[in-house]
Amino acid sequence: MPRYALQIEYNGQPFCGWQRQTDLPTVQGAVEDALKRLEPEAPGIGAAGRTDTGVHALAQVAHCDMAKAWDPFRLNEALNYHLKPLPVSIIDVKEVDPEWHARFSAHERRYLFRLIARRAPLTHDAGLAWQVAHPLQLQPMQEAAKALIGTHDFTTFRASECQAASPVKSLDQAEITEQPYPGGVEYRFRFRARSFLHNQVRSMVGSLERVGAGKWTPSRFAEALAAADRSACGPVCPPQGLYLAGVGYQDDPFAG
Amino acid sequence: MPRYALQIEYNGQPFCGWQRQTDLPTVQGAVEDALKRLEPEAPGIGAAGRTDTGVHALAQVAHCDMAKAWDPFRLNEALNYHLKPLPVSIIDVKEVDPEWHARFSAHERRYLFRLIARRAPLTHDAGLAWQVAHPLQLQPMQEAAKALIGTHDFTTFRASECQAASPVKSLDQAEITEQPYPGGVEYRFRFRARSFLHNQVRSMVGSLERVGAGKWTPSRFAEALAAADRSACGPVCPPQGLYLAGVGYQDDPFAG
Repeated sequence: MPRYALQIEYNGQPFCGWQRQTDLPTVQGAVEDALKRLEPEAPGIGAAGRTDTGVHALAQVAHCDMAKAWDPFRLNEALNYHLKPLPVSIIDVKEVDPEWHARFSAHERRYLFRLIARRAPLTHDAGLAWQVAHPLQLQPMQEAAKALIGTHDFTTFRASECQAASPVKSLDQAEITEQPYPGGVEYRFRFRARSFLHNQVRSMVGSLERVGAGKWTPSRFAEALAAADRSACGPVCPPQGLYLAGVGYQDDPFAG
Repeated sequence: MPRYALQIEYNGQPFCGWQRQTDLPTVQGAVEDALKRLEPEAPGIGAAGRTDTGVHALAQVAHCDMAKAWDPFRLNEALNYHLKPLPVSIIDVKEVDPEWHARFSAHERRYLFRLIARRAPLTHDAGLAWQVAHPLQLQPMQEAAKALIGTHDFTTFRASECQAASPVKSLDQAEITEQPYPGGVEYRFRFRARSFLHNQVRSMVGSLERVGAGKWTPSRFAEALAAADRSACGPVCPPQGLYLAGVGYQDDPFAG
């Protein structure tokens, strides 16, 4: 049974997250439905990261097992044909070793968070970024974010319903940049880690925004992390700014 | 009667263009309706550029005359309140001299065109860029675009229904850049001129795409321009990649 790795881009707005749910539109459900149009017996698929309702992906990765050998280009085209008109697009398909696993072979997840500070409502980016109406300061947010790098107990930035065995994670990147945006400023947060806790990025960004707004000092942010206490977390920010930006593999099937 | 300049961003998808039409949704109609919520007798507004159905704006400029003196910030906020939930957003408002005119005081219009070459359908940028499924070559497009700079009879790149008095226009910029796009390449075309003919940008980009696809040589493109004959134009490209990116004024009310 040949196995294929799928690189998937999606707009999370119309979906109740990645994971299949009975009677609710999900991205996994959409891709599995498209696969069943090709092979009615196609088994379910697994993905590198489960994204929540309203969260987007630039490059989610999943794998599927097919009964017959497909030319990867043909499989890609056929899936996109059956996914229309949903905002889910298969960017690339590669045949992989039957041992290769989209989730278990992954050694890194990368997330992007887009935060736009301006008063006027968003038009082109409505649903594609989190908007706040007040100005933010980059430098204090950058200073606070430094505390996140390395291995920590991230209980503060973990949803109470998180099912991970341990709250200890290692964060390899927590970078914030700013760029001009018409009528305001866009802040881009980039995080990289082997894995993340449930709601970790939205919890971290929600608290970093408090620092940028001048409501928290960078040291209060560091103390919140050190407290390892969910009640020390700031407001969890909404999902529409969050993108699963990429997944890292030792032998990346999509490299080159 | 105080006059105000409005800087307006919009997503053109749900609109039949800028210009007010009876019983059809237009951007001008939406802004005028919002103004009438503030002052029932508010007169109609004029804009620097009339955008077609499906064409977007990053910074359209219009002006309005109000019966009472408004604080520009309050006027901006009130208009955005009444424009909700339409994808039209007033980015900035400035009081201007009663002689100042959004259209007649403008000495420059800037347009951006986004063209994405990739096979997989667009998700986040659906309706916000023109997509072609085949690869393009940047360098021949850049070479062809050089022929556009300067003063020419642009009849080839002018809609047959264009009402401009003369087909002679001066183009100050015709730049094309490329940037990586997931699963493909994005090409950004930037044009700058005192004014444009109807459908001029979409006609030029449609023919430049033929050059990028290898179907036309750069010299065929130059010959098409020199022919000053509408039948020499390539296919006019669709509107969803086009943005009115900015308007230039001698005394720019939005500068600084």
